[in-house]
Amino acid sequence: MLLIEMFVFIGTIAFAISGSLLAIQKRLDIFGVILLGLTTALAGGVIRDLMIGNIPPTNLAEPQYFLVSLLASLATILFYERIEKVTYSISLFDAIGLGVFTAVGANAALSFEFSQPFLIIAMGLVTGIGGGVLRDVFVQEIPQVFRKEVYGLASIAGSAALILSDDFVTPILSLYICLTVTFTIRMLALKWKW
Amino acid sequence: MLLIEMFVFIGTIAFAISGSLLAIQKRLDIFGVILLGLTTALAGGVIRDLMIGNIPPTNLAEPQYFLVSLLASLATILFYERIEKVTYSISLFDAIGLGVFTAVGANAALSFEFSQPFLIIAMGLVTGIGGGVLRDVFVQEIPQVFRKEVYGLASIAGSAALILSDDFVTPILSLYICLTVTFTIRMLALKWKW
Amino acid sequence: MLLIEMFVFIGTIAFAISGSLLAIQKRLDIFGVILLGLTTALAGGVIRDLMIGNIPPTNLAEPQYFLVSLLASLATILFYERIEKVTYSISLFDAIGLGVFTAVGANAALSFEFSQPFLIIAMGLVTGIGGGVLRDVFVQEIPQVFRKEVYGLASIAGSAALILSDDFVTPILSLYICLTVTFTIRMLALKWKW
Repeated sequence: MLLIEMFVFIGTIAFAISGSLLAIQKRLDIFGVILLGLTTALAGGVIRDLMIGNIPPTNLAEPQYFLVSLLASLATILFYERIEKVTYSISLFDAIGLGVFTAVGANAALSFEFSQPFLIIAMGLVTGIGGGVLRDVFVQEIPQVFRKEVYGLASIAGSAALILSDDFVTPILSLYICLTVTFTIRMLALKWKW
Repeated sequence: MLLIEMFVFIGTIAFAISGSLLAIQKRLDIFGVILLGLTTALAGGVIRDLMIGNIPPTNLAEPQYFLVSLLASLATILFYERIEKVTYSISLFDAIGLGVFTAVGANAALSFEFSQPFLIIAMGLVTGIGGGVLRDVFVQEIPQVFRKEVYGLASIAGSAALILSDDFVTPILSLYICLTVTFTIRMLALKWKW
Repeated sequence: MLLIEMFVFIGTIAFAISGSLLAIQKRLDIFGVILLGLTTALAGGVIRDLMIGNIPPTNLAEPQYFLVSLLASLATILFYERIEKVTYSISLFDAIGLGVFTAVGANAALSFEFSQPFLIIAMGLVTGIGGGVLRDVFVQEIPQVFRKEVYGLASIAGSAALILSDDFVTPILSLYICLTVTFTIRMLALKWKW
């Protein structure tokens, strides 16, 4: 339980940074930078919670995820000038968030006793891409998941790995496997411009 | 029951084709084309299910709608070059989807025992236009329903016909009436450029 | 109870006008103008109801909010030419809607016995900005809340005032306080171009 929560924090921080970096690039003001960070970090989980019936959504009911996102956005604003390759950094943090949130989302479906493989993959995908889709829509970009072949596919492969490994290893280990598969595929795609 | 499901498949296929065609026109890559087809086909039903409390949404809980959308998108990619009038085809398949999903959505509200006419019309409209609105937003277009006078109106007229006929004919027949009214009005509007 | 409903009507009218004015400015046709007014007026409440589990959402289950929005949109179309400063008017009516819906949204969270301050503020914010965010996304603008520093902040300050005053005054009075704080801060920001 504790480990899953630590995962969620890592994904939250990564997505908040990716949203804030994009907002800075788009020249939004400070509140806009923070809000786009928050949206990217929290929206995927909120949408998934609506879909599995976890009401009110954890990300809105408990302030710690908001606070962590807020700190990550503020840190991004402070250290922005030191980050040289902004576009690459957005993709890197986005890949971490995608991996973590796919794992957390697929796991949330399982823990709500939804065991159909398709629903688990769908919940991993929605949680993994939801925040990024809203982030891109709000600053007038076609969402990344529609422009990059190996983005949604990475999430789908990760959730498939989680489902396949779930019978053989502990839940935490299959979370790790899902995260690693998703993140690795996404990073390879970035490196080789798939 | 069986007939309604057949309807849903027809609407799903039509919307998946309209989304995939638009994605090809916008030069998205293959995964983007498939995902925009899936979004157009599945999102209206998901949004409606969230609103009437059908959790988890049928389109995510059961894989058949996803599979049908996937096949429709793949077929669209394969036969794309044979389709001469792409813009017209998008509108045609969109009109089929609008008619079918309005009927299915209004009927879903009824079968959840929401009998207020306004809610029935709203659920028909949300189901009918939801997928198309997201489709257009994701590729940076103002959603069609905001640009065409006789688009939302066609859905509203169809649901009104369903409500009025519901007391006199069988549920399946009033579904047909709703679908026919919506589709016919939309096609007349296309033909005469209302 | 009666007073809260009157509030909701005022906010609904204000947001419907702001949406319709923007749609006219963007040269949408009549149905588009009405639908953007409806979306702006009803969407914030619908999203909040999904998040607190009020199913089906009040704005869709009961026709009076729809009817009021419709009338406000029609009136906007009729009297549009008399409104000289359209851009300012959009902001003015938007500020009224923001104030009212923040108050109503925060109050709805309280009346569903969600007493965590963070969730109350989040529900005030979602209800207050939800309709305007969709309005802007649908006509291809970066949502105002991301572009104006003192927009979301006004809503947050208002909900904070509601929480702080809730122990000392009647619920209706703390609604008034929330509305006044949000609206005043937003108007000062407009006046002094914060």
